[in-house]
Amino acid sequence: MYRFTNDYSEGAHPSILKALADTNLEGNLGYGYDPHCEHAAALIRCKIGRPDADVHFLVGGTQTNTTCICAFLRPHEAVIAASSGHVCVHETGAIEATGHKCVAMPAAAGGKLTPELVRAAVEAHTDEHMVKPRLVYVSNTTETGGVYTAAELRALRSVCDELGLLLYLDGARLASALACGGASMEELGEVCDAFYIGGTKNGALFGEAVCILNPALKPDFRYILKQRGGMLAKGWLLGIQFEQLMQNCLYEELGEHSTRLAQQLSAGLAALGVEFLFDSPSNQIFPILPDEVLAKLEGAFHWEVTAVPAPGRTCVRLVCSWATEQAAVTAFLLAVEGALKDCPACL
Amino acid sequence: MYRFTNDYSEGAHPSILKALADTNLEGNLGYGYDPHCEHAAALIRCKIGRPDADVHFLVGGTQTNTTCICAFLRPHEAVIAASSGHVCVHETGAIEATGHKCVAMPAAAGGKLTPELVRAAVEAHTDEHMVKPRLVYVSNTTETGGVYTAAELRALRSVCDELGLLLYLDGARLASALACGGASMEELGEVCDAFYIGGTKNGALFGEAVCILNPALKPDFRYILKQRGGMLAKGWLLGIQFEQLMQNCLYEELGEHSTRLAQQLSAGLAALGVEFLFDSPSNQIFPILPDEVLAKLEGAFHWEVTAVPAPGRTCVRLVCSWATEQAAVTAFLLAVEGALKDCPACL
Amino acid sequence: MYRFTNDYSEGAHPSILKALADTNLEGNLGYGYDPHCEHAAALIRCKIGRPDADVHFLVGGTQTNTTCICAFLRPHEAVIAASSGHVCVHETGAIEATGHKCVAMPAAAGGKLTPELVRAAVEAHTDEHMVKPRLVYVSNTTETGGVYTAAELRALRSVCDELGLLLYLDGARLASALACGGASMEELGEVCDAFYIGGTKNGALFGEAVCILNPALKPDFRYILKQRGGMLAKGWLLGIQFEQLMQNCLYEELGEHSTRLAQQLSAGLAALGVEFLFDSPSNQIFPILPDEVLAKLEGAFHWEVTAVPAPGRTCVRLVCSWATEQAAVTAFLLAVEGALKDCPACL
Amino acid sequence: MYRFTNDYSEGAHPSILKALADTNLEGNLGYGYDPHCEHAAALIRCKIGRPDADVHFLVGGTQTNTTCICAFLRPHEAVIAASSGHVCVHETGAIEATGHKCVAMPAAAGGKLTPELVRAAVEAHTDEHMVKPRLVYVSNTTETGGVYTAAELRALRSVCDELGLLLYLDGARLASALACGGASMEELGEVCDAFYIGGTKNGALFGEAVCILNPALKPDFRYILKQRGGMLAKGWLLGIQFEQLMQNCLYEELGEHSTRLAQQLSAGLAALGVEFLFDSPSNQIFPILPDEVLAKLEGAFHWEVTAVPAPGRTCVRLVCSWATEQAAVTAFLLAVEGALKDCPACL
Repeated sequence: MYRFTNDYSEGAHPSILKALADTNLEGNLGYGYDPHCEHAAALIRCKIGRPDADVHFLVGGTQTNTTCICAFLRPHEAVIAASSGHVCVHETGAIEATGHKCVAMPAAAGGKLTPELVRAAVEAHTDEHMVKPRLVYVSNTTETGGVYTAAELRALRSVCDELGLLLYLDGARLASALACGGASMEELGEVCDAFYIGGTKNGALFGEAVCILNPALKPDFRYILKQRGGMLAKGWLLGIQFEQLMQNCLYEELGEHSTRLAQQLSAGLAALGVEFLFDSPSNQIFPILPDEVLAKLEGAFHWEVTAVPAPGRTCVRLVCSWATEQAAVTAFLLAVEGALKDCPACL
Repeated sequence: MYRFTNDYSEGAHPSILKALADTNLEGNLGYGYDPHCEHAAALIRCKIGRPDADVHFLVGGTQTNTTCICAFLRPHEAVIAASSGHVCVHETGAIEATGHKCVAMPAAAGGKLTPELVRAAVEAHTDEHMVKPRLVYVSNTTETGGVYTAAELRALRSVCDELGLLLYLDGARLASALACGGASMEELGEVCDAFYIGGTKNGALFGEAVCILNPALKPDFRYILKQRGGMLAKGWLLGIQFEQLMQNCLYEELGEHSTRLAQQLSAGLAALGVEFLFDSPSNQIFPILPDEVLAKLEGAFHWEVTAVPAPGRTCVRLVCSWATEQAAVTAFLLAVEGALKDCPACL
Repeated sequence: MYRFTNDYSEGAHPSILKALADTNLEGNLGYGYDPHCEHAAALIRCKIGRPDADVHFLVGGTQTNTTCICAFLRPHEAVIAASSGHVCVHETGAIEATGHKCVAMPAAAGGKLTPELVRAAVEAHTDEHMVKPRLVYVSNTTETGGVYTAAELRALRSVCDELGLLLYLDGARLASALACGGASMEELGEVCDAFYIGGTKNGALFGEAVCILNPALKPDFRYILKQRGGMLAKGWLLGIQFEQLMQNCLYEELGEHSTRLAQQLSAGLAALGVEFLFDSPSNQIFPILPDEVLAKLEGAFHWEVTAVPAPGRTCVRLVCSWATEQAAVTAFLLAVEGALKDCPACL
Repeated sequence: MYRFTNDYSEGAHPSILKALADTNLEGNLGYGYDPHCEHAAALIRCKIGRPDADVHFLVGGTQTNTTCICAFLRPHEAVIAASSGHVCVHETGAIEATGHKCVAMPAAAGGKLTPELVRAAVEAHTDEHMVKPRLVYVSNTTETGGVYTAAELRALRSVCDELGLLLYLDGARLASALACGGASMEELGEVCDAFYIGGTKNGALFGEAVCILNPALKPDFRYILKQRGGMLAKGWLLGIQFEQLMQNCLYEELGEHSTRLAQQLSAGLAALGVEFLFDSPSNQIFPILPDEVLAKLEGAFHWEVTAVPAPGRTCVRLVCSWATEQAAVTAFLLAVEGALKDCPACL
């Protein structure tokens, strides 16, 4: 059985597992006050070109988004996000649970916010009877596989500066964004007020690294981290994983691998005449396949269903990870090709 | 200067002022434990046909919505509301500040929710990664002047029963709804889990009366009332006002007055060829007037701007209250007629 | 029946009722954007000697404390208060409901905080695993009738400056504090970051006036006010009441009246040999009376029980208000004297 | 350097590390829907004698306490805890951040709550102006090393039943409690409404297993888990760790090891005449040592300072873990003995 279910179906990259085993009995101070976290933070500061950044390590994405937004906003301030944004849809109202409204804007192509959408969100909020939009949430890659280029993020930065907004980037799938033309780590270091580098979906057992660049957002972040339940007792486990990811370009390599294989899938399916619900250059793709074809693939492959755009046709999400093998991609394409031959009128 | 700005520009109906003065030195227990609150609650229970209802008095609408929703929901449960609903737009995120997401659905005609919209909201939330819709919020009249009939509310009740939802009705402008074909007080007593009878916009200095009908929602409501800052020290001030409103059909009469005058305005404007942004049978109407006409009215009349549907045309909101005089309506219609004569091509 | 139950058993001072009636049909903008609120704020700014103060009007005390604390603190910041403080005990956890811990310190004499207690609270919180004390909450008068002098508040200000804390004063019973040697309005204007002038317990139907002096605490307060349900639709009702209270020394006169009568009670009881649970120079006193005596007074007088310090003896709270009559005080003292004569061994 | 700093200074027990490595590439469903979580939950249900228990796995203790309390309480309900309780002191107000007050009671011997303390807490809260105590929080072992026996917990259960309270047990250090006479797993299954089995401090990399026994507390727990950021993407990592801990009595063995070594330390120090700040039968002990002695030990041993009970004497906390070696204990005792010889008048 080959899995394209998601990019968090396997444990950790072997080098990470090895580092965890090698350091198992070291004896470290808890809560992130250990040399591994310090070293990993230094590697990240270097990579993003911001020696002044505050770097904090958390366990998961929802926790990271919630902790940051809770730390950065006053009670009446709101988040602007694409209506498909993770914080709007898939975090069980975690942002609202910290008291903040998410102003959901119908996303542009690729699930992306644009300066126009941000401006429209702000203009729709005119006085103190309404929340005050304050933080622009973007994810790179987006939930539908889209990628923000440096130019797009600079344009968002510019509208944020004009309107007094913060720019926050959710990098759960940053590694794939880096692999397909997204803004570089250094560019993120330039344009964001804060962002996080996702480890869970790119080779770590778990872990996300928040980079806070705006000095006004730095004070007392560790208090909020603790209060929100995000301070890991054995904090060095996060440091060790990010040491591995940030060294020798491992993070970038794993992202390139997952993206390359997903794009092979994409190109192969397109060559067979398959269409896509969303255009995606990244490690998750959204082909629309005839149900007859899917029925033949079931059992041998695993995926998630995204939508049913027409009777008899289903959009599935196929995700490649650092652990996906070439064989899986080849097998899937062969299987689709075979199934389509049996059913030439399907597409 | 005649004001059509809103229905809370004047103080209280004279009989209410008189009752407050007459009882000023009575000496009452605080926090709602007084005979006036008891009497007013009994009058309300009778009027809604629910001797078992719990009745609580609060000062204002946002406070009432927030306190109820906070009391009724668990942390992961969400509100379904029309995207034009007061809780979605005009309460500075008060619902989110209690931790609950508002699931905003694009409203049907009249700013109303329908069973289909409610069902769609529930079906869009499929698992524990999303909030769980639990309470349907409707306002009668709606924010755009629409009115729910008893049949419409029964249809909502039915879908609520099917899907395990609570039905909550915001009656800030209930008096006008009663005056133009909306569900009666008794029908509200039948179909809602809870609703409130608005005093502030219908002759009281301030005050809203919450009726809780669903026994599961009753326990400890006064704790939440106090915690949310909604328990008035001199609680009898609310009891006295609702005693007046609920006696001798004063509440209904005031609502009929405001609605009748607004509908005179509406009919008069329609006769002059004016169009409306929203169809409204209630005490607030939304005519679209040429800017040349509005320019001539300015100074003599006061209104709020709702939208600019086309260049040179503005939709204004005209609201009549219990205190609006016939003279104001007559003067406005004459003024528009005059202005249109000077500018025949305007419309 | 004479009531010493509390200072919010009657409606409003006649001059306030009259002003409300006189202005009833004026037609005012809502939400505090009216000339009465503006005028009342100007009177307050003048009285506290701070032309730069932001003044906001709210309906009640719990609402005011909650809104201010919610507006002033970040999520991990905590309140330091006497363990008898209103926010610690009598607001149903309203402060915690905004997410903030109250660090309760065992109060010094008079229910007061001291610089030493504040310092101890701060020193007990050493790192990010604990909340960060940030706001010192004092009430004047205190919940047990104590009064902060200007010197005492200056000493608190000094420790606040040293430790980076905010000083917030709850003036629910400020009028009585002014009447018995407490810091003056001008002194409060000097030492506090914010405080409120209580109307509900000193002649208003309802209403508290928040004065924000620290510029860092001013931005966007009205957003929080709305979000917390504290923005009154007919805001001018608050402005009108404070216009009356702030003119012609009405506020001060009412406080002097209530305090003078309570102190007559206190002196009269002391002369009869009665002891007190708390020393109080203000408008609420705490005599310890034999149960035999109380049994004889019941029916003719009303009070609240504070504690049972010994078998057969009960500490009652006697409160005088702006509306208490001299006759009530005289009658009470006579009644106690009579009861004690019948029971000479009681005391 | 030997560390007695805490019981979370090392990684995981080798069998856990091995299991994580062995399963690394298995490919599992995320979010706890995997066979390892299912198996671990089954083992736990068996061990606690409650086949009906709901078992959920979380990453850390603060997260677990916060999620449970947030899920179990309505907004006005409060926690009763010892004033030394973890939720009161060391979670940066995480409980208050979910809106709930912690009613802190001065702990009895061993940092424990008693039925009398619970009753006193409830009796101090008399009406809706105060929070409503609802959940009794105990930790076993306590923060000062104390242990609740089954009889003590049954007595708490009894007062909880009488007063309508929930009993929740924080088992961060449950393994040590099991090793020194604390209530057994089965007894916890009987008396608690919910409790958690701590992994982080007993051989896991991280992980706590919540057991919910009261059916009223079970619905929708996973929603709250997700909303509070506690749902691990690679949830099987938790299942795998608890499979190891729950099999072959590994959990119990590790707790016995840490407790036995700490008690060796304790007995050895007592034999040298050392006194203790708190009596502790568990894996953390609190000896009071002369500063001259501590000065000689520094560099070779690591500990945390708990208090300075007298000038020249410091109470240190010494904690043994599953990873502490016999050699460390022997070395420490020898070092203290030597230091005391050099300074016979010290003690």
